[in-house]
Amino acid sequence: MSKKILVVAGDGIGPEIVAEAIKVLNALQADGAIDVTLQHALVGGAAYDAYGDPLPEDTLAAARASDAVLLGAVGGPKWEPLHISKRPEKGLLGLRAGLGLFANLRPAILYPQLADASTLKPEIVSGLDIMIVRELTGDIYFGQPRGVETLPSGERRGINTMVYTESEVERICRVAFDIAMKRGKKVCSVDKANVLESTEMWREVAIKTAADYPGIELSHMYVDNAAMQLVRAPKQFDVMVTGNLFGDILSDCASMLTGSIGMLPSASLSATGQGMYEPIHGSAPDIAGKGVANPLATILSVAMMLRYSLGAPEAADRIDAAVSKVLDQGLRTADIMSAGMRQVGTVEMGDAVVAAL
Amino acid sequence: MSKKILVVAGDGIGPEIVAEAIKVLNALQADGAIDVTLQHALVGGAAYDAYGDPLPEDTLAAARASDAVLLGAVGGPKWEPLHISKRPEKGLLGLRAGLGLFANLRPAILYPQLADASTLKPEIVSGLDIMIVRELTGDIYFGQPRGVETLPSGERRGINTMVYTESEVERICRVAFDIAMKRGKKVCSVDKANVLESTEMWREVAIKTAADYPGIELSHMYVDNAAMQLVRAPKQFDVMVTGNLFGDILSDCASMLTGSIGMLPSASLSATGQGMYEPIHGSAPDIAGKGVANPLATILSVAMMLRYSLGAPEAADRIDAAVSKVLDQGLRTADIMSAGMRQVGTVEMGDAVVAAL
Ligand SMILES: CC(C)[C@H](C(=O)O)[C@@H](O)C(=O)O
Ligand SMILES: CC(C)[C@H](C(=O)O)[C@@H](O)C(=O)O
Repeated sequence: MSKKILVVAGDGIGPEIVAEAIKVLNALQADGAIDVTLQHALVGGAAYDAYGDPLPEDTLAAARASDAVLLGAVGGPKWEPLHISKRPEKGLLGLRAGLGLFANLRPAILYPQLADASTLKPEIVSGLDIMIVRELTGDIYFGQPRGVETLPSGERRGINTMVYTESEVERICRVAFDIAMKRGKKVCSVDKANVLESTEMWREVAIKTAADYPGIELSHMYVDNAAMQLVRAPKQFDVMVTGNLFGDILSDCASMLTGSIGMLPSASLSATGQGMYEPIHGSAPDIAGKGVANPLATILSVAMMLRYSLGAPEAADRIDAAVSKVLDQGLRTADIMSAGMRQVGTVEMGDAVVAAL
Repeated sequence: MSKKILVVAGDGIGPEIVAEAIKVLNALQADGAIDVTLQHALVGGAAYDAYGDPLPEDTLAAARASDAVLLGAVGGPKWEPLHISKRPEKGLLGLRAGLGLFANLRPAILYPQLADASTLKPEIVSGLDIMIVRELTGDIYFGQPRGVETLPSGERRGINTMVYTESEVERICRVAFDIAMKRGKKVCSVDKANVLESTEMWREVAIKTAADYPGIELSHMYVDNAAMQLVRAPKQFDVMVTGNLFGDILSDCASMLTGSIGMLPSASLSATGQGMYEPIHGSAPDIAGKGVANPLATILSVAMMLRYSLGAPEAADRIDAAVSKVLDQGLRTADIMSAGMRQVGTVEMGDAVVAAL
């Protein structure tokens, strides 16, 4: 039976990079490797412009009815003056919450062909392969109470609430442990248990849950130290698991270690295996419409989609191999360009991947 | 009149490194450059062991009565099983709150003599000189409500509260702007204003306060992007200002960029100029008592103390120059050792600084 993919291209370079990912899907469809039906919807700034709402009801309904969502990127300076409730980011957060996408998988992988792109010394990052598992529907992102109140003195006071229940922590830890079982079997749980009670509970739950995974080596690290260790010796990590806020910060730091965030995909999964797939990078409004954006992270997000939500691991492997091949051929978009390579645009890169499939 | 310094050596390597800093103070005292009186007190694990309390009342009272506090470091695995309210860290947090030390200054400076120690490529970090201004008495570190509650279902739920008032944000921004006026005049305020209302308010207050500093170029960055940019291009930053939690994470990341956190001091200041001074690194229980710890960060913390709280900028300059000189002489503790240099222990390094004064 045909699998339904909802495509939400979003803002900035979103439409351009998603167009290349769709080419890849179409090519796999044409040769019978997959059977998918695409539908399109608006989210983020594009949806606000059209409907005054960064997450129209129709989009959420269509997302719920799909097997997977392919997202470009949302946001841009155009919408920054809007109230926080109308911003493009609210569309993204609404999709995450609305679909129950509690598990965000963010690989930080250094492509050997792009080793030079890192700002870190080669011996520190060569062979880097970290999987960051970030909780995505809890924590201070969604915690109540929140907002800005005016005190009797007339002064304003802003509040947000970091909150986790045991079951929320347990299920994200299970995702991390399951993934680690198929990798290096090492999980580092990141918290601030020396200061924050909610993360002290996180640590306790992680330890308790690990009892079901005797093969896993579980360690714990304070978030400040984790940020340091990512810079000092990132290869010590296999899988990292952490809350929504710490995961936001650490995964961005980790992906920058590779020097090529234009290459990194991500998956956000629900308990039923439904997922949303998107590049780690943002909407890059400065280069939108210029045809120079790197579509590879979005194309690799399609590979994750085929693997995690659509049950097509072989087609996923073909995409990964094709991306590796175009890099071997020396093709580079501007963001990963280096001496001796051939610089290409968004469309040419997408075409090259299709040809390499 | 003699200035009062309260010395709290703390745990792990604390006593060893503080002993070297005291030698430096004594040498300056002996040649008449400063006039100080030292008093000693316990804090952290050492205080818990002696009194069952990581911050005995006597220590806090003595700290309040002093012009400045010199702290080694607190914490260690020995005290990790303790309840969060009895941990060494609580002693540190209690001192910060009890003295109203709302402004934490954390320089991330790359010493040219130690350029090789960084894990980043030399062109990315050479000449690095960032001042991170971290708010230290507010935010989720102290916000109420906090703790772990049991829900009717029997499940536990952990809560912490991120909270800032306008006046708290304004005063830390003023500190950052004042410091920037004496440096590169650029301030980057870090928040998560696209998701967290409390930090959206932070951004508004930062903008409003900047109106009083026409010479300052104020920019804003989301915390996830800031973590990335520190890795990608740290030299873009002059002064960064942020909240307690984000500052904890980013300042550790920034100091690790230098590759030698054994070199980095910090100052925590109150509205009256009273201050607590400590190295950025921790108590390093693994090397405690071995005489190999690097005392330079603590010695440089004394320089910050003389500059910010004791009105002795010339003596401070002498310390900075002496540290630079011992590095030029090729002396290195184990943590900053490299080929061709002479490895020395904690005491020998302290003696060398005194000799170079
Ligand atoms: C755009 C923003 C709301 C989002 C987040 O903070 O989760 C982004 O930074 C991310 O990591 O996907
Ligand atoms: C020890 C701990 C409580 C402390 C903090 O989180 O503030 C430390 O990490 C620091 O940055 O000084």
